[in-house]
Amino acid sequence: MKQKIIKKRVVGIDISLEATSYAIVDVKGEVLVMESFATSDYPDINLFVSVLSERLMDMVERNGGYESIRSVGVSALSANFMTGSIENSPNLPWKGVIPLSALLRDRTGYAVAVANNADVRALGEHTYGLARGMRDFVVLTMGSGIGSCLFSNGMIHKGNDGFAGEIGHTCVEPGGRQCGCGNKGCLEAYVAKKGIVATANELMAETTTPSLMRGIENLKALQIAEFCNQGDELAIEVYRRTGEMLGFGLANYASLVDPEAFIFTGGLTKAGKWLLDPAKEAFDKLVFHNTYGKTQFLISEEYKVSNDVLGASALAWEVREYSLFK
Amino acid sequence: MKQKIIKKRVVGIDISLEATSYAIVDVKGEVLVMESFATSDYPDINLFVSVLSERLMDMVERNGGYESIRSVGVSALSANFMTGSIENSPNLPWKGVIPLSALLRDRTGYAVAVANNADVRALGEHTYGLARGMRDFVVLTMGSGIGSCLFSNGMIHKGNDGFAGEIGHTCVEPGGRQCGCGNKGCLEAYVAKKGIVATANELMAETTTPSLMRGIENLKALQIAEFCNQGDELAIEVYRRTGEMLGFGLANYASLVDPEAFIFTGGLTKAGKWLLDPAKEAFDKLVFHNTYGKTQFLISEEYKVSNDVLGASALAWEVREYSLFK
Repeated sequence: MKQKIIKKRVVGIDISLEATSYAIVDVKGEVLVMESFATSDYPDINLFVSVLSERLMDMVERNGGYESIRSVGVSALSANFMTGSIENSPNLPWKGVIPLSALLRDRTGYAVAVANNADVRALGEHTYGLARGMRDFVVLTMGSGIGSCLFSNGMIHKGNDGFAGEIGHTCVEPGGRQCGCGNKGCLEAYVAKKGIVATANELMAETTTPSLMRGIENLKALQIAEFCNQGDELAIEVYRRTGEMLGFGLANYASLVDPEAFIFTGGLTKAGKWLLDPAKEAFDKLVFHNTYGKTQFLISEEYKVSNDVLGASALAWEVREYSLFK
Repeated sequence: MKQKIIKKRVVGIDISLEATSYAIVDVKGEVLVMESFATSDYPDINLFVSVLSERLMDMVERNGGYESIRSVGVSALSANFMTGSIENSPNLPWKGVIPLSALLRDRTGYAVAVANNADVRALGEHTYGLARGMRDFVVLTMGSGIGSCLFSNGMIHKGNDGFAGEIGHTCVEPGGRQCGCGNKGCLEAYVAKKGIVATANELMAETTTPSLMRGIENLKALQIAEFCNQGDELAIEVYRRTGEMLGFGLANYASLVDPEAFIFTGGLTKAGKWLLDPAKEAFDKLVFHNTYGKTQFLISEEYKVSNDVLGASALAWEVREYSLFK
């Protein structure tokens, strides 16, 4: 009888705007080897998939061989976990619906799971990070947009169509600021990077308070946080208002799903206490009393270049092993 | 070897303000026999549990005997699924924390699961009702309060502490109407029965429009719905404003959890289209576009006296069989 080989490694792939990274990761979450290339070098999806598959399989050959890998997990913008496809990404170079899971499976012979960055970060935090041991929690992605992934009973809650978690498009100000999605008053219109800059511009127009923000062309959200560190009062007020909106959105989220923690990931987490302290204050005022004082606010420690590759490797363990070549 | 008996019946118990009902239910959800008594007759919890257990065991003896019953499910106000206790109910006659599951188990020898009415209705709808086959959906309880239960991946989402689903205490109007929970602008302050009457009083004060509502002492929410049926414009406007608030709360809920359906249960569902048509209209305007047009609004067909007993029987199947007397 042929003994079944226990495969102790997986591949994690992160496809982001800037770079596509791929790594071999072991059961403990150690990244054994990682390589990457510029995503924008391959505007044709078929060429992209060919190049990625070739480079990946070459890396695998040099590091343990085909049989050492169990499966592949992919983090990609606009990915739908349920279909394994990238769907109508407004940012990636490929248009329409890209059946990425099938394309990569056919070229590599491995089972491939695909999910968006919020899902993958939640899986990463659950497998290797701050959410280890938690069953019900929320991971937020904070940057150009605001997204989230809810874990329920130890599993990703995808909802009926794979679109759960759109906290960025919950309304925090009825009839408020115009959002890119078409609605008004969405959380994202206030708390994502552009929204923070819009609040700064509003505040500068409202007052004559001197500020380091004044006169700066192309002001950035993290630059404003830097001014907070320098004691700039108006900059601190920008983040106070932003945090208040975030706290409002999170209070409604917590009253609905009672999470053990909100785990914050993404570029905006660099604003740290300037954003989260006022958010926590507003949250504590608004959340339903049974949940008051229980929900932790945590900034991901893992947020660095390899994070989404790690999360993607956690996703890889979730799929059943498969091979075209068996 | 002793053959294990397959037990094809469970007991469902519903403890509400008015009555405590208990029934034997088969695998298909047929109520074989049901009895009840006035909950308020037993303000002492130990006496209540003794009387309930004795009457129940007597009913069981007369209908198939001890061994025919697998387990017991209980629907109770303010019940915590995770602890099996009734916790600090503001309405039931017993104060503090009542370990109902343990009390009933010790007296009957059956495994006993306890949950609140939103959870039990969701289980009932999933097992025997409109949510049959659904994995991700929300059941709402609409009456003196507004509650909900989310199903995620085919299971109840309880959250970290068992307090998920508090849609009644999500904020729909920042700084708005005072809610009994201490916060302002909660959905419940507008959409529960008292809130609807408050809106009616506001509207009557705002305008001089003639209305059947005027001059009625102790106006009731369902009475206002009756006036809608008679074409009363101001009454229709009361429900239009109420529905708008409900639609707002549901849109945020759906953007977060992407449910296949909202299933409405409870006394207020008798207001029917007067409440749900404007709710759906507001919902469609606000929900995130990926979820637009997908979420069904359904009124439970099962809402009748036996419903919570049926739901409680569905809960009974969820617990592992147990007996003190084996």
